[in-house]
Amino acid sequence: MGKTMLAFQLHGARDLRAVELPRPEPGPGAVLVAIRRAGICGSDIHYFTHGKVGRFVPKRPFVLGHELAGEVVALGQGAAPSLLGARVAVDPSHPCGACRYCAVGRSNLCLNMRFLGSASCDPHLDGGFAEYVAVPARNCHILPAQVTWGAAALIEPLSVCLHALGRAGGLAGRAVLVTGGGTIGQLTALLARAAGAAPVILSDPDSFARETALRIGADATLDPQRPDFAEAVEAAAPDGIAVAFEASGAPAALAQAIALVERGGTIVQIGTLPPEVALPANDIMARELTLAGSFRFAAAFAPVLRLLQSGRLDVTPVISHVAPLAETGVAMAAAVARAGVIKAQLAAGEAASG
Amino acid sequence: MGKTMLAFQLHGARDLRAVELPRPEPGPGAVLVAIRRAGICGSDIHYFTHGKVGRFVPKRPFVLGHELAGEVVALGQGAAPSLLGARVAVDPSHPCGACRYCAVGRSNLCLNMRFLGSASCDPHLDGGFAEYVAVPARNCHILPAQVTWGAAALIEPLSVCLHALGRAGGLAGRAVLVTGGGTIGQLTALLARAAGAAPVILSDPDSFARETALRIGADATLDPQRPDFAEAVEAAAPDGIAVAFEASGAPAALAQAIALVERGGTIVQIGTLPPEVALPANDIMARELTLAGSFRFAAAFAPVLRLLQSGRLDVTPVISHVAPLAETGVAMAAAVARAGVIKAQLAAGEAASG
Amino acid sequence: MGKTMLAFQLHGARDLRAVELPRPEPGPGAVLVAIRRAGICGSDIHYFTHGKVGRFVPKRPFVLGHELAGEVVALGQGAAPSLLGARVAVDPSHPCGACRYCAVGRSNLCLNMRFLGSASCDPHLDGGFAEYVAVPARNCHILPAQVTWGAAALIEPLSVCLHALGRAGGLAGRAVLVTGGGTIGQLTALLARAAGAAPVILSDPDSFARETALRIGADATLDPQRPDFAEAVEAAAPDGIAVAFEASGAPAALAQAIALVERGGTIVQIGTLPPEVALPANDIMARELTLAGSFRFAAAFAPVLRLLQSGRLDVTPVISHVAPLAETGVAMAAAVARAGVIKAQLAAGEAASG
Amino acid sequence: MGKTMLAFQLHGARDLRAVELPRPEPGPGAVLVAIRRAGICGSDIHYFTHGKVGRFVPKRPFVLGHELAGEVVALGQGAAPSLLGARVAVDPSHPCGACRYCAVGRSNLCLNMRFLGSASCDPHLDGGFAEYVAVPARNCHILPAQVTWGAAALIEPLSVCLHALGRAGGLAGRAVLVTGGGTIGQLTALLARAAGAAPVILSDPDSFARETALRIGADATLDPQRPDFAEAVEAAAPDGIAVAFEASGAPAALAQAIALVERGGTIVQIGTLPPEVALPANDIMARELTLAGSFRFAAAFAPVLRLLQSGRLDVTPVISHVAPLAETGVAMAAAVARAGVIKAQLAAGEAASG
Repeated sequence: MGKTMLAFQLHGARDLRAVELPRPEPGPGAVLVAIRRAGICGSDIHYFTHGKVGRFVPKRPFVLGHELAGEVVALGQGAAPSLLGARVAVDPSHPCGACRYCAVGRSNLCLNMRFLGSASCDPHLDGGFAEYVAVPARNCHILPAQVTWGAAALIEPLSVCLHALGRAGGLAGRAVLVTGGGTIGQLTALLARAAGAAPVILSDPDSFARETALRIGADATLDPQRPDFAEAVEAAAPDGIAVAFEASGAPAALAQAIALVERGGTIVQIGTLPPEVALPANDIMARELTLAGSFRFAAAFAPVLRLLQSGRLDVTPVISHVAPLAETGVAMAAAVARAGVIKAQLAAGEAASG
Repeated sequence: MGKTMLAFQLHGARDLRAVELPRPEPGPGAVLVAIRRAGICGSDIHYFTHGKVGRFVPKRPFVLGHELAGEVVALGQGAAPSLLGARVAVDPSHPCGACRYCAVGRSNLCLNMRFLGSASCDPHLDGGFAEYVAVPARNCHILPAQVTWGAAALIEPLSVCLHALGRAGGLAGRAVLVTGGGTIGQLTALLARAAGAAPVILSDPDSFARETALRIGADATLDPQRPDFAEAVEAAAPDGIAVAFEASGAPAALAQAIALVERGGTIVQIGTLPPEVALPANDIMARELTLAGSFRFAAAFAPVLRLLQSGRLDVTPVISHVAPLAETGVAMAAAVARAGVIKAQLAAGEAASG
Repeated sequence: MGKTMLAFQLHGARDLRAVELPRPEPGPGAVLVAIRRAGICGSDIHYFTHGKVGRFVPKRPFVLGHELAGEVVALGQGAAPSLLGARVAVDPSHPCGACRYCAVGRSNLCLNMRFLGSASCDPHLDGGFAEYVAVPARNCHILPAQVTWGAAALIEPLSVCLHALGRAGGLAGRAVLVTGGGTIGQLTALLARAAGAAPVILSDPDSFARETALRIGADATLDPQRPDFAEAVEAAAPDGIAVAFEASGAPAALAQAIALVERGGTIVQIGTLPPEVALPANDIMARELTLAGSFRFAAAFAPVLRLLQSGRLDVTPVISHVAPLAETGVAMAAAVARAGVIKAQLAAGEAASG
Repeated sequence: MGKTMLAFQLHGARDLRAVELPRPEPGPGAVLVAIRRAGICGSDIHYFTHGKVGRFVPKRPFVLGHELAGEVVALGQGAAPSLLGARVAVDPSHPCGACRYCAVGRSNLCLNMRFLGSASCDPHLDGGFAEYVAVPARNCHILPAQVTWGAAALIEPLSVCLHALGRAGGLAGRAVLVTGGGTIGQLTALLARAAGAAPVILSDPDSFARETALRIGADATLDPQRPDFAEAVEAAAPDGIAVAFEASGAPAALAQAIALVERGGTIVQIGTLPPEVALPANDIMARELTLAGSFRFAAAFAPVLRLLQSGRLDVTPVISHVAPLAETGVAMAAAVARAGVIKAQLAAGEAASG
């Protein structure tokens, strides 16, 4: 272990470079985490493909990666000694803790948010497609023994999904439709099931996504392009859809979700959509629907960990690919190609060789 | 009091006829109400202008009018004797009380709703642009002495607005924007103020609507067509708009409402919009907004009455016109013309001559 | 099938008589249900033991039993023909559908509630410890094929528990303590788990109740009489208890529940307590707790059925005893004795011989 | 302006001393506030009378006072220059911003809370019965011009009350009972009225408290000791009490509140009660009541300020006494004696002479 480290830095669209960077030093209250597993998120793919994500345009090269788990290998001043050697999941959020959104528990909307591996803040915070990352000790959540590295690196997207569930209210015994079978859609279906939704239906035009959803525990899966899609949803949920989670980012899926929820139903928008979409606005009024956006997460790592610890969540089917960190470029290309990929993860250190 | 009565029946677009109809007889559990005041609603105007409202196409002539107050002058079998002679406001809703929406307290979404003066149910229920209407005793809410006939005939639209407030959660100390200064916009502003919203801002291109809003108690009014509208809203509500109520039915107003609410904010859609509107769907996700439709009302007459009784609501500025029932046609024409009209009401019986 | 039927009528404390009663005839909108399974509820036991339940003192002999499932064997006028022959669970609630509580979806608080097998209404409605019961068609919920008679007769207590969950808000990833391992405690733990609570801890001094809870899927069970009970709860839920469900009716259990929930936590009271209990009222304020009563249920059969249908709930461990209807007296005695009994059910017709 | 200041330090029960202390220096991010108005809170009185408040036993002399308004007269490093000279209300709360309660917006339950003028944290933070206090810039809320010093020093207790309202849900058109007419009871009634509660009823055995409540805008006031109290409440609120706020700290008042709320109603406990109180626990279940504690406040200064700014709240009747800071001892004695005192405030600087 030297004073430098391998990291994957985005230099522009389709330009992700393996570089040697100084190993970060943990400042006061921070710790150094040796990355064991890092997931490639849709936003990483988007940065890689387009060189930016919406309004977030990188000002300089930065390290991608914010779905992270690893071992604490060094402590900054004041960090709790008990953390040394701990297996941890890393919360990439750095809310200010002081703005009016933080004050009311909506730190995901923080006016001064800094986020690992993102160009949304300036200066950008380097992420974890690297051998090491330094983060505040409070961003580290200690992993129970039974939580694998693979599951640990899914806690961030699981947090996104649990937050989305929270936007819909209680789900026990209520019918749920998830549109989109990427990682977020799959994990939303998994969590909806764990939260008592019944039935849970997932729609995706891709057959591999649908097969994965069945392994995740969805009660039914459907191809949204079949002409009798609405009838098929009704057959699977005869009492109507109470809540739809839109996780595909496709305007057509949102339109289906709005059309299929029952009177008084809720549609939670998680996926990234085009800036403007034609919506049945009058229907939202006349059927008294609720269209609720959901953005990132707040205070969700702890409940996700409790669910993982108690064995409620089997995330195995979601992790379709694991590659060594050194092969990040290849893994990214596979993730971009998407064929048969739900979640690709990078393994480093012992985890990579284990 | 004869066995017939004067009533105003819609026979088609721009065809509202004064007719002599049999005076209705109250059936078991029902009462006969002699109408004293009836408000002309936007949907009455829409029926009159277009001969229909959206999918609600009349199959036969029917009597318009569902904002009703009057005196109970006869009792059907089993109706409480104490109702005889009572001044009452009439709830035009006839939910089934048995469907799954009624069972959870959302009777406004009732699968079998019948509604006075509306072609939404078949057979249509005749409304109250007439000397008499027969309704179930439970649809009658006894008026405290201090509630005028004018206020009583506003309880129905006030119920629509109170229901809309309920879609937004508590408003105490939160900034509210109301787009649209028709009756619903004005009463929403009035109720938002009464529920503690601060400041309450109302936007309408019409200066009379804005003047009325100031008399209603709005903290600020703005013309949405001024080029610096966003800046003016910000000046009036420096901490941001927490909740916007869209009561104009104009897509541009909805767009403004969405753009102007703060992160995590709520937009309640009350107005009738075109079937399809281009909306900033990604912004709803990325700023975690909630777009909540609001349709009619459920169980709102009683709380509105308590507010009226305790003197919290001065509805006077909203009632811009009162005409005798016999002049319903003229009043309707004025309401269609809209100039200087917020709410036009029809007075009958003693109230008309009083 | 004759014109009379076997039924078990309460004539006073410890006086439950097998009698021959006229087979009821279903009136308009009602159906005749041939009972296949009926559960003995705590309130049945209380009526049997004390001759009354609190203020509910029977005025005349009546048939006990309100946890019912069976087959529709005859239709009253106007009942849907499709019901004939259907396997159904029977909702024993007959709310009025018109009072202010029904209007807001809280029909469990109905001012005019009538309830099967209860002396709470006058005249009392005969229950289903009998070969037949006649009920409104709308009280019948058709059973999916995979729901057994045993599970079907648990839908009523499951509804009580799902309603109690609703009093606590979303449970996904939150730690739950259930005090009391009778049927209600067990099913609350089962549903809390199904709704994502993690961990779920159940306390009961009886070892059989604790063993049952583990089979139900509780993450941990504890004897509340052990001196280190608080420490043991903390070990099982290191982040604190978010929600406690008190299902034992023991004041000491309620005291433990209040003491053990974290700041801001919620205690839902389901069990029947003495009229007056000494509570740490100042602590409720200073730790900002919420003590929420939960009474019966409203609109809960449908979501419970969806959960059963999708295989989320294995209720098998709860059904400790099944006896033929003819042996109701013996089964009641066993239920009173309690040793090793969680839920005793009575089987009739084909189910009894099957 | 010298380098020392006058302050009133608690040295033990009934031992409040005028002392000369070093004028505090604002550290990084902090400001120095010259106190213009400071309210004497019930907890100040309790510290004075008993030398402690419950478990909060002072370890050393400290300055009381946490209802504070004043002028910013000096800036610590990094504090915004625009604050210099500003009229501000001071939020006495110093939550950590990092614990699990802060993370979900419940900073009033912060595990590491520090609070001005309180012995609840160690070391104690000196309060504002003094010429100056140094506080973080973010604890200062700039006052609109129309907010008087008297009103400004009531923002803290108003925040307590607004937080309590938040524990009850929306109040528009709902009947409210407030038990106890001290400052908290009065301001709760004022805010409940401003939030649309109707009617608002306040009970207090003291006639001056009742007179003040009428001036505050309560719809009715009642002596809880009159034998027909329940009937009088029913006469004032014929549809039942939806929400009761217990602000007296008297067990008898809590018992009345619980008895008088309607089925499904809510009781919010704000007052400080004895550790143990006998409560109708079974009734809480059988009538499905909610007993919700309310402790201090979180993020409430901003909405209170918006309400004050828009002229919704006239707090004048509550401020029964204003004394110069130098006469803090006399004012405290009057507050202890209670006769005719609702809120006593101390005025300093220009405000004292103005």
